[in-house]
Amino acid sequence: MNNFSFYNPTKIIFGKGEIAKLDRLIPKTAKILLIYGSGSIKKNGVYEQVKSALGKRKVTEFAGVEPNPFYETCLDALTIIKQKKIDFLLPVGGGSVIDATKFIAAAALYEGKDSWDILEKQVEIKDAMPFGTVLTLPATGSEMNKGAVITKSETKEKLAFHSDKCFPVFSILDPETTYSLPKRQVTNGIVDTFVHVIEQYCTYSVRNQLSDRFAESILITLLEEGSKVGKNPTDYDIKANLMWAATMALNGLIACGQPQDWATHSIGHELTAFYDLDHGVTLSIVLPGVLRIMKKDKLDKLAQLATRVWGYTEGSRAERADKAILAIERFFRTVGAPTHLSDVNLDASCIDPIIERFEQRGWKLGEKGNITPNKVREILMNRL
Amino acid sequence: MNNFSFYNPTKIIFGKGEIAKLDRLIPKTAKILLIYGSGSIKKNGVYEQVKSALGKRKVTEFAGVEPNPFYETCLDALTIIKQKKIDFLLPVGGGSVIDATKFIAAAALYEGKDSWDILEKQVEIKDAMPFGTVLTLPATGSEMNKGAVITKSETKEKLAFHSDKCFPVFSILDPETTYSLPKRQVTNGIVDTFVHVIEQYCTYSVRNQLSDRFAESILITLLEEGSKVGKNPTDYDIKANLMWAATMALNGLIACGQPQDWATHSIGHELTAFYDLDHGVTLSIVLPGVLRIMKKDKLDKLAQLATRVWGYTEGSRAERADKAILAIERFFRTVGAPTHLSDVNLDASCIDPIIERFEQRGWKLGEKGNITPNKVREILMNRL
Repeated sequence: MNNFSFYNPTKIIFGKGEIAKLDRLIPKTAKILLIYGSGSIKKNGVYEQVKSALGKRKVTEFAGVEPNPFYETCLDALTIIKQKKIDFLLPVGGGSVIDATKFIAAAALYEGKDSWDILEKQVEIKDAMPFGTVLTLPATGSEMNKGAVITKSETKEKLAFHSDKCFPVFSILDPETTYSLPKRQVTNGIVDTFVHVIEQYCTYSVRNQLSDRFAESILITLLEEGSKVGKNPTDYDIKANLMWAATMALNGLIACGQPQDWATHSIGHELTAFYDLDHGVTLSIVLPGVLRIMKKDKLDKLAQLATRVWGYTEGSRAERADKAILAIERFFRTVGAPTHLSDVNLDASCIDPIIERFEQRGWKLGEKGNITPNKVREILMNRL
Repeated sequence: MNNFSFYNPTKIIFGKGEIAKLDRLIPKTAKILLIYGSGSIKKNGVYEQVKSALGKRKVTEFAGVEPNPFYETCLDALTIIKQKKIDFLLPVGGGSVIDATKFIAAAALYEGKDSWDILEKQVEIKDAMPFGTVLTLPATGSEMNKGAVITKSETKEKLAFHSDKCFPVFSILDPETTYSLPKRQVTNGIVDTFVHVIEQYCTYSVRNQLSDRFAESILITLLEEGSKVGKNPTDYDIKANLMWAATMALNGLIACGQPQDWATHSIGHELTAFYDLDHGVTLSIVLPGVLRIMKKDKLDKLAQLATRVWGYTEGSRAERADKAILAIERFFRTVGAPTHLSDVNLDASCIDPIIERFEQRGWKLGEKGNITPNKVREILMNRL
């Protein structure tokens, strides 16, 4: 097992009706910026629950955070924070709204000239505004981690940052808020969660039995509940299990002591940046390619995955590895996720700009840093 | 799934050589009380590592915390804290040393007259001294939770308290520090961890798939690694897995959304208080009795346990439940833990004082609050 550190101070409040607890969680005197996206929270009753819980507190609203949130949008929020002397941020929505909030929280107290440096130069964040979240779309795990991904609309760059100062103070997870999600977002959430787990699991073995088993637990939960949710979108326990699985998949827990990959995410981010694909869609397309092209490096884990998650006990490690990859593709299709570039009307011509960017940055991806730009090309060619 | 909240701000630093990081974790100007037990840390090199990492900081030592730590011992530490103006506590040891420290941390800032009220009257703890831990005996999970159990030597009362103010700021877990543990303590640690999981798992189903699977992950890890550790006491990965399993078993994670039992611990505490048995020893004796006598209430979970952890797929739920209980007893004996009162030279006469105490307190135990004093008698009679 590798050495590791684990730290996660976010308080989780989970369950039906728990949005009402906002009243206990936020100071009575707080000047709140309520941050949300396209306004679906006004249709499903979440907005009303939040406003009712906040009572007489001063609330300014900042709506319109887009999926894959723009840096430029975050800058608009900063102006309002100054004008209104906001001292607490309350994102209500999914990973995009929460990610935007994390950047806003850090940028609001950033003393440098250009807050883009937080992303591009990865400057250290010394402080950030406090914020708590109300999650309505389980997928990214942002509600219980310290990372965020922001896109510069101008240059189509999608970059991540992480800071211990950017953990939510609290996150409220009420599975009932996810009843009204469109199928596309439920599918994206399941795929995102699944791929988060695979990125932290499907590398090489370091005899880390417990983290392995925790990861497999999340995968099995996704397979079991994910295959039922389509026909049961208002089954509380199915939604609750999917919501908690998404949080657990990227809060640091299953990363403890493990090597990590993240190649699928890095490649997927470029597909989103260039071709405006949903994050989840990029992942279900790219992952099978990464696993297939890097199969040799991941053989033990792929075989273990096949045995423990799908019960394939027959055949060589290589045969079981192949079965695991096929099973993943099959699962993605079962939940309605695309697995090829052609499914989203892209062809081989989409690849060059992505390779060029990886070459410019000099990035080598994967748990062994051996996924060169040429390997990325091979991976994407596998997904035509 | 039940509603729940989860909060755990303890920073974990895990791995070989990590004790050296104390230098980064504790302020240079701290006035430290180094708290430990019988002095085994002076024989296995841990004391030297700690002292070396602390460098020139002012360190006062408080040795001699006993297993099942005494309230009276904690009071002695309070005197030293005042005398020496201590501002940081550093327990180095197992759960007893850490539990004692939690009580000392709370009692040092307690404004009431009698700090025993923290345990007996469960008064709210408004503040506590900061402390970080160096764990050397994986078992209780105290290194990453907010609870402690303290015994009043005078009256043989063993009571627990919990407070959000009593999370360790950090805990350093170096599996190499556990190489020199005597077999008895390794066994006690495995049993304690195992029973922590069962108390939070083996109740009734609330369709909480992920918490169930996480719990089963810890149990499987204990079975696999626990059966190997006897012959491989210095195998790093075995020790690392057992150490991390112990922490994960009682840090709030697997309790999320689950009903909980804790009858085995409550009964075990009385066995320790009256007859001075090791905590782990009381658990391996009592647990099979609780499961057998309360089998009807726990049927679904016992059957699930049998199937998922031991692979028993044949037979009725009742038959699989019986197999699970037998498998647990067999595992306890494999690691060298006693499973009957006669194994520790106790007979039926040991039962009355315990029943009397439960009757006095009016406690009803278990996830349904239906384990009356009479049921406790039945459970203990099953363990003769």
